[in-house]
Amino acid sequence: MAQDLRSQEIKNPVDVAEYLFRRLHEVGVRSIHGLPGDYNLVALDYIPKVGLNWVGNCNELNAGYAADGYARVKGISAIVTTFGVGELSAVNAIAGAYSEYVPVVHIVGYPSTVAQKSGMLLHHTLGNGDFNVFSKMSAQISCAVSMLNHQHEAAVLIDNAIRECWLQSRPVYISLPTDMVQKKIDGDRLNTPLDLSFPKNDPEKEDYVVDVILKSLHAAKNPVVLVDACTIRHRALNETHDFIEKSGLPTFVTPMGKGAINETLPNYGGVYAGDGSNVGVRERVESSDLVLSIGAIKSDFNTAGFTYRISQLNTIDFHSYAVKVRYSEYPGVRMNGVLKKVTEKLGKLTIESGPKPNNDIPKEEEVSKDPTITQAWFWPRVGQFLKKDDIVITETGTANFGIWETRFPADVTAISQVLWGSIGYATGSCQGASLAAKELGIKRTILFTGDGSFQLTAQELSTMIRNKLNPIIFVICNNGYTIERFIHGWETSYNDVQEWRYKDLPAAFGAKEGEVLTYRVESKDDVEKLFSDEEFVSGETSKLRFVELVMKWDDAPKALKSTAEVTAKRNAEN
Amino acid sequence: MAQDLRSQEIKNPVDVAEYLFRRLHEVGVRSIHGLPGDYNLVALDYIPKVGLNWVGNCNELNAGYAADGYARVKGISAIVTTFGVGELSAVNAIAGAYSEYVPVVHIVGYPSTVAQKSGMLLHHTLGNGDFNVFSKMSAQISCAVSMLNHQHEAAVLIDNAIRECWLQSRPVYISLPTDMVQKKIDGDRLNTPLDLSFPKNDPEKEDYVVDVILKSLHAAKNPVVLVDACTIRHRALNETHDFIEKSGLPTFVTPMGKGAINETLPNYGGVYAGDGSNVGVRERVESSDLVLSIGAIKSDFNTAGFTYRISQLNTIDFHSYAVKVRYSEYPGVRMNGVLKKVTEKLGKLTIESGPKPNNDIPKEEEVSKDPTITQAWFWPRVGQFLKKDDIVITETGTANFGIWETRFPADVTAISQVLWGSIGYATGSCQGASLAAKELGIKRTILFTGDGSFQLTAQELSTMIRNKLNPIIFVICNNGYTIERFIHGWETSYNDVQEWRYKDLPAAFGAKEGEVLTYRVESKDDVEKLFSDEEFVSGETSKLRFVELVMKWDDAPKALKSTAEVTAKRNAEN
Ligand SMILES: Cc1ncc(C[n+]2csc(CCOP(=O)(O)OP(=O)(O)O)c2C)c(N)n1
Ligand SMILES: Cc1ncc(C[n+]2csc(CCOP(=O)(O)OP(=O)(O)O)c2C)c(N)n1
Ligand SMILES: [Mg+2]
Ligand SMILES: [Mg+2]
Repeated sequence: MAQDLRSQEIKNPVDVAEYLFRRLHEVGVRSIHGLPGDYNLVALDYIPKVGLNWVGNCNELNAGYAADGYARVKGISAIVTTFGVGELSAVNAIAGAYSEYVPVVHIVGYPSTVAQKSGMLLHHTLGNGDFNVFSKMSAQISCAVSMLNHQHEAAVLIDNAIRECWLQSRPVYISLPTDMVQKKIDGDRLNTPLDLSFPKNDPEKEDYVVDVILKSLHAAKNPVVLVDACTIRHRALNETHDFIEKSGLPTFVTPMGKGAINETLPNYGGVYAGDGSNVGVRERVESSDLVLSIGAIKSDFNTAGFTYRISQLNTIDFHSYAVKVRYSEYPGVRMNGVLKKVTEKLGKLTIESGPKPNNDIPKEEEVSKDPTITQAWFWPRVGQFLKKDDIVITETGTANFGIWETRFPADVTAISQVLWGSIGYATGSCQGASLAAKELGIKRTILFTGDGSFQLTAQELSTMIRNKLNPIIFVICNNGYTIERFIHGWETSYNDVQEWRYKDLPAAFGAKEGEVLTYRVESKDDVEKLFSDEEFVSGETSKLRFVELVMKWDDAPKALKSTAEVTAKRNAEN
Repeated sequence: MAQDLRSQEIKNPVDVAEYLFRRLHEVGVRSIHGLPGDYNLVALDYIPKVGLNWVGNCNELNAGYAADGYARVKGISAIVTTFGVGELSAVNAIAGAYSEYVPVVHIVGYPSTVAQKSGMLLHHTLGNGDFNVFSKMSAQISCAVSMLNHQHEAAVLIDNAIRECWLQSRPVYISLPTDMVQKKIDGDRLNTPLDLSFPKNDPEKEDYVVDVILKSLHAAKNPVVLVDACTIRHRALNETHDFIEKSGLPTFVTPMGKGAINETLPNYGGVYAGDGSNVGVRERVESSDLVLSIGAIKSDFNTAGFTYRISQLNTIDFHSYAVKVRYSEYPGVRMNGVLKKVTEKLGKLTIESGPKPNNDIPKEEEVSKDPTITQAWFWPRVGQFLKKDDIVITETGTANFGIWETRFPADVTAISQVLWGSIGYATGSCQGASLAAKELGIKRTILFTGDGSFQLTAQELSTMIRNKLNPIIFVICNNGYTIERFIHGWETSYNDVQEWRYKDLPAAFGAKEGEVLTYRVESKDDVEKLFSDEEFVSGETSKLRFVELVMKWDDAPKALKSTAEVTAKRNAEN
């Protein structure tokens, strides 16, 4: 009663669920991923009401992966699950987003606050009356947790969660109890957009750091730039691009940094990953007397097993939380402002150019008469097939290492999970990414996954068909877990998988005649034919294209071979 | 070095992984569920070595569900996953096993203790050097956590975990770092089997409780027995069976207690679930002056939305952790011993008989000329189709409520998740249950799932095919989430699902010609024909049978309708 009176005093009342979805719309979300459940059903009614689209995934893990892919293209995303069963199914995807700095808003439909207070023995509970155990689990993998248990604080908690999600570029958790969905809150708040700008650096401190950097840079004899994942994730792409273009310095990317920069620039030099680097890159980077390292995440697979050999003495690190010049640390100075100023104040630099990567087929492959599609042949060939603006998704497995050998056209978005490395991710992510592409008018989303990985989340193909998405999907059919074989268990049965008739799946998942085109390519000639098929390569068709790409079980990109060797050794370490 | 010396002093050294798998073999496990990952690969080599079978699931959530199903048939099970990505994918299945008291040993392949100590930035981590965050999450849903970080305590921790798993009938978590797998420990320990017996009740206290119970029971005018889930989960089936048979008291089961007792006994009276009870059951149970309630879990869906109306004044509760006679509590007295003694000392009882459930088709359905397969017609008809020893799995949805109307033959094992209620569970569980059935020589495993639920975990059909399992699978095709429609969103699109060609899936998942039989039944006549097809009903064939069972989108068992109504009301409660 008291509550109703309070609601009536609000000039422009809006329901909590509507407020939440309007805020998501405001920050750029247009589609909501997830699954219904009785604790979130009433909330779902608000989605079309505020002009959002409900995706309707096949399961929550896949929905989480899809939300991750969508966020990597659109800047943020949202997933709705139901208490306990739904949210826990998605937990691995959310942990992946946390690990890899992807901003996903996870909204969980909760039992009513009344039922929670009385500790009712409800379905989807552990039977112990504890309604906080799942949020506690998610707190480990969220940068904010907003429990909407009180009408008067709901708006603040929602705003805070979305802002933290954006600024920290990590998942947040929002609980939405059934009895809160329709509670009235102040709609006028929505007239003030969320402030998503990064706090400015202290100008004096920033200038100081910029000076130190410029001094080092102008004195360096053969400086290089190395761009990594956090450049993308912490929204420093423009600043980095401007710096690279103006400076003309040889620039390299790490595996997780693929897609961060325009690889058609004349000063682009290829992928640096220690022993897994592109030809000539390792020598150039490691002999440099100054490496400007932007947004680094020096994880094992991102450095081909820590075979990274750059001294901190020769490094300037740019991060979202600090800048580090050799051993001098500048905490609290965000890279974005610093990069901008460094670019502005840039003087004359000594430039010693680096390797020029291309998509030429390696000589041995060029002359070989073997029709087999090899990893060494395929990935540069993919480079020729790709177009400006493509979204390219690669799965943990041979694909994730093969793509190091592909030089991208301009403005490619590359998606993969080099750090978290959860297989099945790429297929789910492809659903979200291709939906985001559709919303943005991006023409092609291309997925390269493995036969083993595809099996984990195969049903998301159904969601793509249902949502009329048109990605190009390659399933690398190589009889199982090739990447694992290179680590351990070369011919053991646990590295085999059941052999599916992959290209029969779209029809089984309900694709209508002609909606999906399917292919099987077993030789280089088949690939050539495919890549010259206009309908297949088109960015204009609405058809999903699904390819079985047959490769040998014992073939892997060279970077994978060396990384696998180091990994096996570390696992055996005593 | 010191370690090596110590190993040499052990008379009969055995590797940690071998010890672990031998213990699992000892307690009855014959197949290990899970997926490989580089942190568990070397451990997997031990599985065939000790005479165990590796299942090789399609993903970890499904593997977790399968392990749950396997444990419900064989008494315990094990799943192996890899650090982070694998274990978190399985977390929802493990939470379900925790909630529903299912003993699953979860073994997680960890990075080496060396890498952990130095906080390396490895793949499958959150990138923060914290290797304990996932075990902390799992601690919430495990009754024991054994981190095998030290050679000298590994055996004790393994023994402890397996014993707790068995005795508490809940999941346990075991971490197995890569460098611990081959460490030598004392193999002679294996000559002493684990003690899995329940601690005996204090005899004086037990006798006291038995006396109190007998007094009440002998004085009662129309006592009844009500059997629930914990009777199964806490291994009191034999004691309960003997009591029911000797006493001759009218006996009822709750939905979660289905399968606990022999439903062909003359004193079996049907399903009690408040407003959702079988015909006549509610009146009989609620008018009783003494209800012997064995192993109760009074959750919402187990009581048709708390429409349970039995006064504690008329109840004796038997639990694994206590006995409660009206309001007198006897903590620490386990039901098993008490039931046994009560049966032994039983005197003359006043017996007022109860309803006699059967599998007769309801009159309206019998006379109807409509060929449509209705829920009201189907479930009693299933009762006629079932045979002694069948394993019957039902999914959350119409199936889980429909099965209340099916009277079972003797020795049926019923599997469902009435409390946890995670959809997709039943299909995964069917893989594990039918594998367990094969190991035990049980002939038929029969799954009833919904079209919506099936989509979450469909690929486990592939694992069944790969492992040459022969369950009979019914997918209820009713255009989406019917159970949800009855709660909220009658015709909303979020309750629709993509329409699959379900029966094309086995072939797409690699079933060879003739290995799987597929059917589509759209009318009662079709069902009749199916149920009289010898190959279809056979317990001797090795063929998997897969049926699309077409029902109406707006049809539901009556118990579901009433439960949905209460649930919708509770969700809206303010
Ligand atoms: C969820 C999850 N489970 C298990 C693993 C361990 N794993 C990493 S790669 C891989 C095999 C991938 O095989 P496939 O997709 O066929 O790739 P390819 O054969 O091209 O290497 C496995 C099982 C993982 N990374 N994530
Ligand atoms: C993992 C998970 N996600 C979501 C839900 C919410 N939920 C409960 S039942 C149900 C629909 C089941 O539909 P279906 O299997 O088709 O059953 P039927 O149509 O026979 O009712 C859903 C979405 C859940 N219980 N578990
Ligand atoms: Mg493969
Ligand atoms: Mg359905």
